[in-house]
Amino acid sequence: MKRMSRDIRTANRYEVLRRCLDRPAVSRQELAAETGLSSATVGTLVGELLDLGILVTGGFVDSAGGRPRGLVSVDAGHGSLVGVDVAETYVHAERFDLNLRVVARADRELRPGAHEPAHVVAVIADTVRAVLDADTGGPVLGAGVCMPGLVDRQGGISVYAPNWGWHEAVPLRELLAQHLDVPLYLDNPLRASTVAELWFGAARGRDDAVVVNLGTGVGAGLALGGTLHRGVSNSAGEWGHTTLVLDGRPCHCGDRGCVEAYVGAPGIMRNLRELHPGSPLLHPDDQTATIEAIGRAAAEGSAEALDVVRETARYLGPAVADLVNLLNPEVVVLSSWVAAALGGPLVSEVRGVVGRHALAGPFAAAEIVLSPVPTDPVSLGAATFALEGFLGRNGVDATGLRPGPRASIAGGA
Amino acid sequence: MKRMSRDIRTANRYEVLRRCLDRPAVSRQELAAETGLSSATVGTLVGELLDLGILVTGGFVDSAGGRPRGLVSVDAGHGSLVGVDVAETYVHAERFDLNLRVVARADRELRPGAHEPAHVVAVIADTVRAVLDADTGGPVLGAGVCMPGLVDRQGGISVYAPNWGWHEAVPLRELLAQHLDVPLYLDNPLRASTVAELWFGAARGRDDAVVVNLGTGVGAGLALGGTLHRGVSNSAGEWGHTTLVLDGRPCHCGDRGCVEAYVGAPGIMRNLRELHPGSPLLHPDDQTATIEAIGRAAAEGSAEALDVVRETARYLGPAVADLVNLLNPEVVVLSSWVAAALGGPLVSEVRGVVGRHALAGPFAAAEIVLSPVPTDPVSLGAATFALEGFLGRNGVDATGLRPGPRASIAGGA
Ligand SMILES: [Zn+2]
Ligand SMILES: [Zn+2]
Repeated sequence: MKRMSRDIRTANRYEVLRRCLDRPAVSRQELAAETGLSSATVGTLVGELLDLGILVTGGFVDSAGGRPRGLVSVDAGHGSLVGVDVAETYVHAERFDLNLRVVARADRELRPGAHEPAHVVAVIADTVRAVLDADTGGPVLGAGVCMPGLVDRQGGISVYAPNWGWHEAVPLRELLAQHLDVPLYLDNPLRASTVAELWFGAARGRDDAVVVNLGTGVGAGLALGGTLHRGVSNSAGEWGHTTLVLDGRPCHCGDRGCVEAYVGAPGIMRNLRELHPGSPLLHPDDQTATIEAIGRAAAEGSAEALDVVRETARYLGPAVADLVNLLNPEVVVLSSWVAAALGGPLVSEVRGVVGRHALAGPFAAAEIVLSPVPTDPVSLGAATFALEGFLGRNGVDATGLRPGPRASIAGGA
Repeated sequence: MKRMSRDIRTANRYEVLRRCLDRPAVSRQELAAETGLSSATVGTLVGELLDLGILVTGGFVDSAGGRPRGLVSVDAGHGSLVGVDVAETYVHAERFDLNLRVVARADRELRPGAHEPAHVVAVIADTVRAVLDADTGGPVLGAGVCMPGLVDRQGGISVYAPNWGWHEAVPLRELLAQHLDVPLYLDNPLRASTVAELWFGAARGRDDAVVVNLGTGVGAGLALGGTLHRGVSNSAGEWGHTTLVLDGRPCHCGDRGCVEAYVGAPGIMRNLRELHPGSPLLHPDDQTATIEAIGRAAAEGSAEALDVVRETARYLGPAVADLVNLLNPEVVVLSSWVAAALGGPLVSEVRGVVGRHALAGPFAAAEIVLSPVPTDPVSLGAATFALEGFLGRNGVDATGLRPGPRASIAGGA
């Protein structure tokens, strides 16, 4: 109950800010009508956002006069936010203004095998510094860093990333803080892209949504009751390791028949190899090149590529139907780079197969769409965590708005 | 957001009442300490419950003097609630006092094949009348009726129950209201037993719990963030029709390889037949007798019975691990008659198999237990829906406490 009452106040504050982002000045009355909150509540929340300098009165700051009084808008240049997407092979950082528009970008490579914690930390810090040094945007209010692996939030932030040989917990926040003097918020990419859909994408305004991330690994971010469902130890969403084929293909988690073994990028490469062993679409050592080749060829109607998409949908369909049957969501969003590469042909095949596996009622209630987020959802979501953290850290203890241990991944530095 | 803010107020009210049930008189201070709510909030909620006559001041009404002032307790006899469990073969009704203790019971049979709506309605009404006529308990505040099938809440309550040949919606509430003059609340048994665990069982006080119902059919009730997760069209929890073995055993839903085909009572009978074709445990036309025979023999160490339990756990384990990986709950509760019959041997086998399939983190966070609810959880949950409905219907519109269309299954008559 404690958690719920904190969540609702935090969620209302987010909701008001979300309605102000990237649009012309808006009145408190409009905000009340759009959010369903009372005028008094909207007045309080707008007041807090004005105090923080995130909102300003009187329309856009660069528009002189003429606007009616009482309007508010985001002061985009009042501060900026950094979002970092740390993947297996690269680090990608973006700097955003307070409208969550990208104002600077930087990329660094992570060489295969070069995954010692000190090295990874140095590369992350170097990438972040590149966007910090960019001569654009207001003072940095915080940086969200999302990376693969389990984030253990007991006693500070540590990360287990077995794929990188990090079997022992690595105190990532502490190590990063030695390089970077901004508040840091750590989480994983699945939750980042789910928050991006909640704030800016297909889950916006929906009560129950599932964000299916299709990449090298796969997972399902759960946005239930309008907020991120984390689970009791912050690891909800491991749909990639639910069983699709009992005693089926071996999975790198040690189990067999997991969803990920069939629809993660390596699983899709295996589908291609089994169907068309000598296919020119196959780049044996390059997942990205292979998936993009399949996507391009499928868009051009190649029978071979469409075969692979269909075979992948034969596995992905029942696994998505499981989410529809179990959770009865309003929308299932297909996100991440594999979904983007296979695009329309994948979505339309998957819709058909889900329809054959899901129960009629939940299927009729669930839209299945590609993510509409135009930029990298992981860095956008990471920046959103930093924004949520900034809102939670600043002047809101007294009103109970500070997110508790379960409401945000980590407090500021 | 609207829904969330209504839910939190409703949930706080339930939480205060729940703390008062079936215990000696308690002070507002104790309630504040136990719920984490402010004294002001507890004062308001206690005041409302006093106004409704559900709580009384000054300790138990039958204890004269001596108690300190300012204590409150439930007035158990101020009213009563009816909970009805409509199953494939029987109707079971219980009448409860306001401490949710059973004060009367009635049972009627539903003969196989006799499932025309008018007949089923007459049998339900007759069973309810038997407990209404019992000369015990206060005036009836409402009756919850839970039955298999999909409950469609758009435009009144209709029920689709394909197992009974109800392929068209049956306006069950309207038909029942012709026989019964009490407020009616309809839902399905899965959600009833989940609410019973939330109020009185293993999910009490937990943020995230999953109630795995094992009967003829199987399903998973989801109690996330401390409240029932219904999904967008009130059909969340259809875990029985998630895929465990792609292209596996046919399921009566028309799909193949569903969890239910392996761990529902008919699936367990098939497991027995495949392992020990001539087993004396098998009662070919009687699910209940077969499952109970397996349970008794397993408890006595019969190798044949333990084989069946182990084979069932081989399927149930990965399916429960799917719930653990996806939702990261604090507790998984095994409920309903098959779980009760197979008891300890099933739970300990399932725990072992879940440990081999689930990821280490979520597995370590999840208890797996048998339901501790001592009575029929479906009629208890049905009565709880009636109690929630009574609280929602009475004098609380002004404060926004009336549950909206998604917060309870149906308003009163
Ligand atoms: Zn796996
Ligand atoms: Zn099925």
